[in-house]
Amino acid sequence: MMHHYNYISEKIISKSKIESAYIFMKTIGIIAEFNPFHTGHLHLIEACKKDLKADHVVIVMSGDFVQRGYPSFCDKYTRTQMALSCGADIVFELPVCYATGSAEFFAKGAVSLLNRLGIIDYLCFGSECGSVDLLTCIADILEKEPANYKETLLKELKSGLSYASARQKALLAYISSSNIPYNKKDVENAFLSPNNILGIEYIKALISSASPIQPYSIKRVGQDYSSDIFTEYSSASAIRSYISANGITDNLSLTMPETCINILRNNADSISNPGKLSALLGYKLILEKDNGFDRFLDINTDLSNKIIANIENYADFDSFCQLLKSKDLAYSRISRCLVHILLGITKDDMEEYKSKDYISPLRVLGMKKSASSLVKRMNALTDNKILINLKNASKILSDDEQEILKKNLSSSEIYGLICSRGPLNEYKLKQIIAN
Amino acid sequence: MMHHYNYISEKIISKSKIESAYIFMKTIGIIAEFNPFHTGHLHLIEACKKDLKADHVVIVMSGDFVQRGYPSFCDKYTRTQMALSCGADIVFELPVCYATGSAEFFAKGAVSLLNRLGIIDYLCFGSECGSVDLLTCIADILEKEPANYKETLLKELKSGLSYASARQKALLAYISSSNIPYNKKDVENAFLSPNNILGIEYIKALISSASPIQPYSIKRVGQDYSSDIFTEYSSASAIRSYISANGITDNLSLTMPETCINILRNNADSISNPGKLSALLGYKLILEKDNGFDRFLDINTDLSNKIIANIENYADFDSFCQLLKSKDLAYSRISRCLVHILLGITKDDMEEYKSKDYISPLRVLGMKKSASSLVKRMNALTDNKILINLKNASKILSDDEQEILKKNLSSSEIYGLICSRGPLNEYKLKQIIAN
Repeated sequence: MMHHYNYISEKIISKSKIESAYIFMKTIGIIAEFNPFHTGHLHLIEACKKDLKADHVVIVMSGDFVQRGYPSFCDKYTRTQMALSCGADIVFELPVCYATGSAEFFAKGAVSLLNRLGIIDYLCFGSECGSVDLLTCIADILEKEPANYKETLLKELKSGLSYASARQKALLAYISSSNIPYNKKDVENAFLSPNNILGIEYIKALISSASPIQPYSIKRVGQDYSSDIFTEYSSASAIRSYISANGITDNLSLTMPETCINILRNNADSISNPGKLSALLGYKLILEKDNGFDRFLDINTDLSNKIIANIENYADFDSFCQLLKSKDLAYSRISRCLVHILLGITKDDMEEYKSKDYISPLRVLGMKKSASSLVKRMNALTDNKILINLKNASKILSDDEQEILKKNLSSSEIYGLICSRGPLNEYKLKQIIAN
Repeated sequence: MMHHYNYISEKIISKSKIESAYIFMKTIGIIAEFNPFHTGHLHLIEACKKDLKADHVVIVMSGDFVQRGYPSFCDKYTRTQMALSCGADIVFELPVCYATGSAEFFAKGAVSLLNRLGIIDYLCFGSECGSVDLLTCIADILEKEPANYKETLLKELKSGLSYASARQKALLAYISSSNIPYNKKDVENAFLSPNNILGIEYIKALISSASPIQPYSIKRVGQDYSSDIFTEYSSASAIRSYISANGITDNLSLTMPETCINILRNNADSISNPGKLSALLGYKLILEKDNGFDRFLDINTDLSNKIIANIENYADFDSFCQLLKSKDLAYSRISRCLVHILLGITKDDMEEYKSKDYISPLRVLGMKKSASSLVKRMNALTDNKILINLKNASKILSDDEQEILKKNLSSSEIYGLICSRGPLNEYKLKQIIAN
């Protein structure tokens, strides 16, 4: 039924290490933000689990800062509880450098983490097109850059097209000249929708890491992720707007599982406060303006200069993004850049992590009691040990992984400053173990 | 009537430069915070003006951060308007490094600024004892350290007494062996009250700078400065507590001039928000913890280590001061240290300013229309030019003064982040010129 372009490496044979009892168990991995968890997420987990007859669901989730360049709506522990209450068996923290990175870094960081777990069979995601074959076809060309494709790409770039346009043109030319069963409209539509684009990045990351994990996609249900319409399948963005305006009301049951509403109610002090975020960012801009900002990830000299020139008009985070955005610089790109400044995420950091295959500490934010068998399998299958108790970090993690963990912890401390509960000492927290 | 110990230098003759028309005009200087302005402040201005038959009142006022190591209750422009509405002719900004310094640095910085104006006849202040003679006597001994005094001081220090106790013992011994008409009780009482102690520092600063300015003190009326009792002469602290709890109500007319209540009402968005302050400080502590804190003013290695060891328990500014305080470290000392961290005020900065006679830009925050004659006199009498319009800063100020100004401006930007009005661009503000 599904036709997968063949990129699977010999790594798959390492699976033979598994104890025979587990050999037929299927585990799906999902990369997510759950910001907050809603019925669309529940549908994704349930549909993929059913379709693939999977036994376990492993989540790689952004911590306290998310990919659009903003603090998460509520903290990572609250979102972990939500996921565990809705079908996830175990939740790993995606390091903040990847979680707040471009779509490519986000995908490469998350896929690298899934790869390192050693037990994931499928990477499942929702997409607007719902066709993993179409997305895999595109990802395969983009990642491998066959000669015909590359030729057209370079020609179009030389003629003055933007990278995105040149790439699309080269893709279309390559596909129409090949024996590939997709047409212009399929490809154009694929690039129109954010979950398709992210899906392509996931598959590119699977290919480039020669991963044994299979991609699997279901058609996304409900509103576009940035829609503000509040319905049965609202976007996370619509839910955030609704809660900001109305609080945590019973109406949310239209669009969020009851358990998640209750978890949010019990953790309302973990919801982030945009006013405090604005104060922190303004302060950091004042502290750093004499040094410029181009050492931070994604910020070139032009943007750094633009930031410096506009600091005197800084009022708050949102209006500053509006002030800086332009035809060439999307709001979300700027927002991400500002979060890199806030958290001190630099180009040098990312270069180093990249050169080390997007390493991560394999840190568990929470798990079901029953997932201890999963942890055993993961620990048996690879050299990368699962970090459940932070106190074991120095024993289990490499120096680089400890560096990344430290950045995650300090980012979460900063997050604590902008929500009403205040900073947490994660070393002193009780593990989230759900029934 | 008043007997002043003779410390006045030959500098006084420089006054002969004044145009003859002004020769009999008297100008008093007052060093203040007006945090906020209350009836006690009004009483000080009116009583001193009347007693000394003064024509003009010049204020040196802390900017947006005050000596107890905290943001001012409302911003410097609001407090400037209050002062101008209650008898002040012109208000100068005391640079933030002195304004948030120990009593000694606060006094030396402010007196240096008054000296540089060239037209101040009296430095007026309220004190609990009301006797400028007693305070001058004590200040003179402490500043000049006569041989007898110093001998006892060193002996007592060697015997293990704290500096404060040894100093008091040596003072008493010196006074009882001299022909000085004060007794043990007078001296002990002088050191019991905060305004007396500040008065002694003012006079020490006058002596050490060989200032032509005469000290003058009236007895302070009303509550102790830290009292929380709300009466006709409430302390600024009681007024702040009252407003925080009750808002800007008509009851304030018991203890604040009507004009000041109206000014505060019109500038309610300039009142600082402790929650945002707490977030900024927490963030700075997280950013700097790996470097330690001992390069900041007043912070030794012990305190730096204590801060680092306690960061994991940081919840907010106030509770962090409570956590760090000890028998040897008063709350206000710690609060001041934390503000030095927040604003980046270092030991090196202060050493440099100190070595340059506590230089300041002579920056006017606001003035009465009629004070332009005062400005002319000040500009005629000294080489230090009065800065009314920030745009002239690079023309008028030395490099060092520009450095200090820059620190004031960035501190005020930081202040803007913690009040609801947001940061101001001071270069674009209209001058405060009152009728």
